[in-house]
Amino acid sequence: MPVLVMKFGGTSVADLDRIANAAAKVRAEVERGHEVIVIVSAMSGKTNELVKWVSETATFYDAREYDAVVASGENVTAGLMALRLQEMGIPARSWQGWQVPILTTSQHGSARFIDIPRTNIEQKFAEGMKVAVVAGFQGLSPENRITTLGRGGSDTTAVAFAAAFDAVRCDIYTDVDGVYTTDPRITKKARKLDRISYEEMLELASLGAKVLQTRSVELAMRYKVRLRVLSSFEEVTETSGTLVCAEEDIMESKAVVGVAHSREEAKITLFTIEDRPGIAAAIFGPLAEAGVNVDMIVQNISEKDYDEAHPGAVTDMTFSCPVDQVPRARRAMEEARARGAINYDDLIIDDDVAKVSVVGIGMRSHTGVAARMFTTLAREGINIKVISTSEIKISVLIDRKYMELAVQALHDAFALEGAGRS
Amino acid sequence: MPVLVMKFGGTSVADLDRIANAAAKVRAEVERGHEVIVIVSAMSGKTNELVKWVSETATFYDAREYDAVVASGENVTAGLMALRLQEMGIPARSWQGWQVPILTTSQHGSARFIDIPRTNIEQKFAEGMKVAVVAGFQGLSPENRITTLGRGGSDTTAVAFAAAFDAVRCDIYTDVDGVYTTDPRITKKARKLDRISYEEMLELASLGAKVLQTRSVELAMRYKVRLRVLSSFEEVTETSGTLVCAEEDIMESKAVVGVAHSREEAKITLFTIEDRPGIAAAIFGPLAEAGVNVDMIVQNISEKDYDEAHPGAVTDMTFSCPVDQVPRARRAMEEARARGAINYDDLIIDDDVAKVSVVGIGMRSHTGVAARMFTTLAREGINIKVISTSEIKISVLIDRKYMELAVQALHDAFALEGAGRS
Repeated sequence: MPVLVMKFGGTSVADLDRIANAAAKVRAEVERGHEVIVIVSAMSGKTNELVKWVSETATFYDAREYDAVVASGENVTAGLMALRLQEMGIPARSWQGWQVPILTTSQHGSARFIDIPRTNIEQKFAEGMKVAVVAGFQGLSPENRITTLGRGGSDTTAVAFAAAFDAVRCDIYTDVDGVYTTDPRITKKARKLDRISYEEMLELASLGAKVLQTRSVELAMRYKVRLRVLSSFEEVTETSGTLVCAEEDIMESKAVVGVAHSREEAKITLFTIEDRPGIAAAIFGPLAEAGVNVDMIVQNISEKDYDEAHPGAVTDMTFSCPVDQVPRARRAMEEARARGAINYDDLIIDDDVAKVSVVGIGMRSHTGVAARMFTTLAREGINIKVISTSEIKISVLIDRKYMELAVQALHDAFALEGAGRS
Repeated sequence: MPVLVMKFGGTSVADLDRIANAAAKVRAEVERGHEVIVIVSAMSGKTNELVKWVSETATFYDAREYDAVVASGENVTAGLMALRLQEMGIPARSWQGWQVPILTTSQHGSARFIDIPRTNIEQKFAEGMKVAVVAGFQGLSPENRITTLGRGGSDTTAVAFAAAFDAVRCDIYTDVDGVYTTDPRITKKARKLDRISYEEMLELASLGAKVLQTRSVELAMRYKVRLRVLSSFEEVTETSGTLVCAEEDIMESKAVVGVAHSREEAKITLFTIEDRPGIAAAIFGPLAEAGVNVDMIVQNISEKDYDEAHPGAVTDMTFSCPVDQVPRARRAMEEARARGAINYDDLIIDDDVAKVSVVGIGMRSHTGVAARMFTTLAREGINIKVISTSEIKISVLIDRKYMELAVQALHDAFALEGAGRS
């Protein structure tokens, strides 16, 4: 019997009525002939309550105890969902992470999957169980302690189960009805995509379209799990939501499928640094150790004259990071300079920038995407501060005040309002 | 190093401040040189919330799912308590039932202990851990499912751990400061006992002095666990609380140590039943099946004349049960009569009675306790409806309106206000 994985997030199981609503969607899939594995989050608000208790109890908390406390929210939902399904006459039972068992590493708070053995759940399916309700976000370490996967980890749990059980699809039920060409709060022309490739979804997820956890999309791509994002609060049809799938499952490929944005960015430039092998490592090593998530990096050849202070070739280095990490980045650079690991004349921070990106696998075959993007921004009078590109993405840093304007103009320029691709 | 078990009930861990207060008491015991096993209940109110969710989700719930949901409350407290202790600099960790593992039968909702292997916890003690915080009330079935022991099961967990680890003592922290000679709400002369024997405590617990779960006292008696009941909200000293211990640890033995009462009792009499072998089984079998907790039983030889309807010897049978079980008891009797299993002329219910008991191991050596009890009640004009005795207890059923008067008079008559025994 084909296995389907369905995942319900916190807002989809926020109270008993919503659990009943989610259970009805599960029943519909059982009636369509699936064996279903349901992954549940904690009832919305519960995880925050538990996290608050932990941080009020201990300043520097033991991550193992944090995990043991925080994982309990999902256990409650799993039991209630199983009960609700049973009440509807569907053979169901709950599974906590250690019961499956969901084997993970010991990195508490951000554990990684090692293995999800199928034996226990498959045996129950063989005995007539139709639905296995699994507590998301958690696992079991080699030391027999409860681990968690980090916030949003239930998406990842769902994909991992879909991979482990060769599921026909992994449906992620959430409070939005799919992935959009851009943020609908910025332009009403934003349109739901019927399909998107893993690669595009990854770029969009990491660029700030917070529908799916990046890690879950990576996992889906690696194991070719067909992922569908859809709303818990709407009737489900064949065309509901957005299917995240392999490139070859997408017929038409427009050059650009979406415009992403990230508002709280900062740009940091180190002026007049030595241009020598190892200088990048000397800069970005300390930043990584300080926990700074460096995003774009640009190195300019500086055409300065030779001077006594800098006898070798010199250059400038610019990078971006989230604006709230600027103090950490500055301290890391100052410390590195103080101990002689790097040398720079000046460190300039621009913490008033935003990032706008266009994404699409079609870029590989369509030429002129970059040109059109830059022309569009120029026409609006928007200055580009940094450019960075990947095979399927072009990102620019611009003044933050132009962010909405840039998104709207690019959405128009690439005709994203047009008929959806399928 | 001597192991001490400390158990904190729901009101003792109701919020983060109270958890901190309980943790301070644990620290004091660590400083006195103990390795401590702490058994915690759910934060007060939490279990009720979870139970409510379960019963609102499913009418006839799967007890296995009920247990999985309801046990999560204790897991939260265990983690928070471990964190709080760590914050105080005490090496501690939490243990959920399946991690110890606490092996129980599969009777979900009222599971029984099979074994509590010491290996895992002892290994951590050997590595320098000072406190193992264990989630009470739960265990693990042979099918790898979470079980619970029934309400109040955390007391039983505590005693079972004390037995398994040969603990020097099992301290039960609660919201009262010990076991009293009688209910202080009925007479201000009620006095805290310093010591009480297991047998006496069992009689008092089952008679309505709700300080300790009956099952936990039974278990303590079987394994000779020294149990101390004391308040979470008072300074702990050497003489705090009440020690429940073996008879030989009690120096002085007064005839009577306490007067217990149970308000909501009912008396049911079956008139003119056949007096033949097997008639008691024919009556009390159906009552047990109907879930009626029969307490006192009295059979009178009826001196009625022979008549046609009852050719053999006849008798009357009287028993008592909690007043809310009367409808069930009546139905069970009527059904048994309808199918010819028993025969009676009349069934009379008196649902306006209460039970008052005097308890004391000293009764075995002191004579005249019954006589003094009956004389005292007679002097107050209280009619005795049923009498039942055990080796260390005399109970009577009386009109409910006289209950307080009877307790007060007996407390005076046996001089329980006097100096405590030790």
